[in-house]
Amino acid sequence: MSQTSDNNGRPHAVATGEPVRLGVVGLGTEGGMYAQFISAGRVPGMRIGAICDILSDKQQQAQEYGVPFYTDYREMITSGTVDAVVTTVPHYIHPEVGIYALDHGVHVLVEKPVGVYTAQARELIEFAADHSELIFGVFFNQRTNPLYQDLRALLASGELGALRHTTWTITTWWRPQGYYEQSDWRATWGGEGGGVLVNQAPHQLDLWQWLCGIPESVFAKCQYGFRRAIAVEDEVNAMVDFGDGATGTFITATHDLVGTDRLEILCDRGKIVVEDSRRVTIARLNQDERAVSDAMPMEQVREMFKGEFDPASLVTTEVKEYDSVWGQQHCEVLRNFAAAVRGEEELLAPGGDGIHGVRLANAIHLSSWTGREVALSDFDETAYLKLLNERISAEGKFEVRPL
Amino acid sequence: MSQTSDNNGRPHAVATGEPVRLGVVGLGTEGGMYAQFISAGRVPGMRIGAICDILSDKQQQAQEYGVPFYTDYREMITSGTVDAVVTTVPHYIHPEVGIYALDHGVHVLVEKPVGVYTAQARELIEFAADHSELIFGVFFNQRTNPLYQDLRALLASGELGALRHTTWTITTWWRPQGYYEQSDWRATWGGEGGGVLVNQAPHQLDLWQWLCGIPESVFAKCQYGFRRAIAVEDEVNAMVDFGDGATGTFITATHDLVGTDRLEILCDRGKIVVEDSRRVTIARLNQDERAVSDAMPMEQVREMFKGEFDPASLVTTEVKEYDSVWGQQHCEVLRNFAAAVRGEEELLAPGGDGIHGVRLANAIHLSSWTGREVALSDFDETAYLKLLNERISAEGKFEVRPL
Repeated sequence: MSQTSDNNGRPHAVATGEPVRLGVVGLGTEGGMYAQFISAGRVPGMRIGAICDILSDKQQQAQEYGVPFYTDYREMITSGTVDAVVTTVPHYIHPEVGIYALDHGVHVLVEKPVGVYTAQARELIEFAADHSELIFGVFFNQRTNPLYQDLRALLASGELGALRHTTWTITTWWRPQGYYEQSDWRATWGGEGGGVLVNQAPHQLDLWQWLCGIPESVFAKCQYGFRRAIAVEDEVNAMVDFGDGATGTFITATHDLVGTDRLEILCDRGKIVVEDSRRVTIARLNQDERAVSDAMPMEQVREMFKGEFDPASLVTTEVKEYDSVWGQQHCEVLRNFAAAVRGEEELLAPGGDGIHGVRLANAIHLSSWTGREVALSDFDETAYLKLLNERISAEGKFEVRPL
Repeated sequence: MSQTSDNNGRPHAVATGEPVRLGVVGLGTEGGMYAQFISAGRVPGMRIGAICDILSDKQQQAQEYGVPFYTDYREMITSGTVDAVVTTVPHYIHPEVGIYALDHGVHVLVEKPVGVYTAQARELIEFAADHSELIFGVFFNQRTNPLYQDLRALLASGELGALRHTTWTITTWWRPQGYYEQSDWRATWGGEGGGVLVNQAPHQLDLWQWLCGIPESVFAKCQYGFRRAIAVEDEVNAMVDFGDGATGTFITATHDLVGTDRLEILCDRGKIVVEDSRRVTIARLNQDERAVSDAMPMEQVREMFKGEFDPASLVTTEVKEYDSVWGQQHCEVLRNFAAAVRGEEELLAPGGDGIHGVRLANAIHLSSWTGREVALSDFDETAYLKLLNERISAEGKFEVRPL
């Protein structure tokens, strides 16, 4: 596709000090929340440029913000009222809106997931790569959490050595039946493309890989409509292989009223435990655990068996608590995105990073459908899309996706 | 085999009030510990009858207990000095000692695991079934822990409803390299038949199934000699399927200096979390979680999203702490076994229960070797033994096991 920007093919340039005019595509729960944050002045360097929703009765709500309202995102994008858009629309539509905006010189902040399946996510990502003069971000608000930023820096520093094992149990995504019945597209194969994997857990699928690396393969069991009357998965168990003997387990569900949020990362020279995305315990060794193991005399081993010596006494433990303010993360993503549009900052979550979460989610589905371990390094996206389309067809409510 | 008991085919009958004379087969770490407990009077209704070890230099140590010493367990069993034996010998030999004792009218308490592979475990269990006049127990000392007894009673009562999901991360089995180098048979395929699965984790493999039921299948990844110079596994990741949508994950390792011990059991009407085999949190709902989900108005869902309503507030939470005294569990197993021999109590851990842990451990190995999910309900024990024998052959230190 050639670029046919409304401003003669040049991207919307926003000068230093000037606010970025954001077009909100979709004035639903998320879009409405972002509009409120921005109009309340919680996002420095950004203002609302226009609002778009296919439901014309949203116009009244949009008028509160004193900006133009559109029912067609194409019109809004070419209207000259916005420098950038955020896509708070059903997941399947993210790539099409993103590509249209980029093709018309408008910067894009795509809601997670970047796409429902890797083929469409790649299409957007590759299109954006050909329009590198435009900013293309993905809304991974949890990357702005100082807790995960600190962990990412710690792990990237190499201080804790190579990864051995990691588990994340994240079942705090409790959703009652009524939640699923809000819209026809929710929790369907054709409208949403999955359940907890594509709606709630993309945050953790991103953070996990951001912290621990990209797995080589996955084996998974998903429970479809297990404790909710939905077609898609309300529970996921996945076991991944990172290579070099490092492995991990990812567990998520929307039916655990007393959800667990516990992340463990075991490395050669230390261990991280994160509870409730809030409390971090870092145990550090001053040498490789294997050196400790090799040097320990049998006398000390015998003391250990009698409970007279605790090997955990060989580590130094640090505990940190992190506070979080509701909405702060979303405002920070919007602020960082606006700063990136003005050329002042790097994006915290470049859109291209979005492929990892989509691929892992797709591979988890595929493994659960086939009963086999699935490779991520050369993921068979055609096999996935065929089986996804079978489910969309069986549902009989939405069109299948082009292969 | 026919019974050729030394007392004319009749089992050793021990009268009420009389202590059971226990023969200790193997005066190593475990056997020595049991002998000390018994001689210190910590096991009511039991005394040491004789001691046996193939190492004749253990005779001096045995003399401290003032009982006959043998280097051949057969001689001890037929000597008339013991009513029962405990088999603290390398795992492969448990079945042969057990069968010999039962065949000579002597009661048997087999150390865990009952056998290394299901074929030999079954042989012992079936032999014992044909000698039901004799007591045949397995040394699952952790079943005596009041914490697990209470949980077993709670789950068996049905109060919490059907199982949805369970995970046990039990990496508190830290063992340094020197531990593995204590004996030639340790951590070898031919001498021990596995690593953490056959030596340390059998306790949890038993408890987990005792509490949650027997899985139908398992997929697993084991790391062999990952962070220890051993042939067998020092780390295990297993995902099991209990049927009816209930699944679970079991993770264990011997290389985590800051081990985790965390068991979660999620059911339809509640959730159990056990930390460090000591602290139990039980969250109870007064109805099925699904009924809560179905009844919740959207208004409350919206409040939840704003952090104004916490669904966990719908449960009643009870926290219990359990103390444990070192050795108490072992003394309790011995006491219960002696009482069973006198016909006064039921066995807490009948030997036949030992098959479940052996089969799950074998299936975990087999899955990790083949990269495939393995059925437990019709476990292919020949396929397992063939692949085990390949590893024993490659080691070149021990004889392969008869197919």
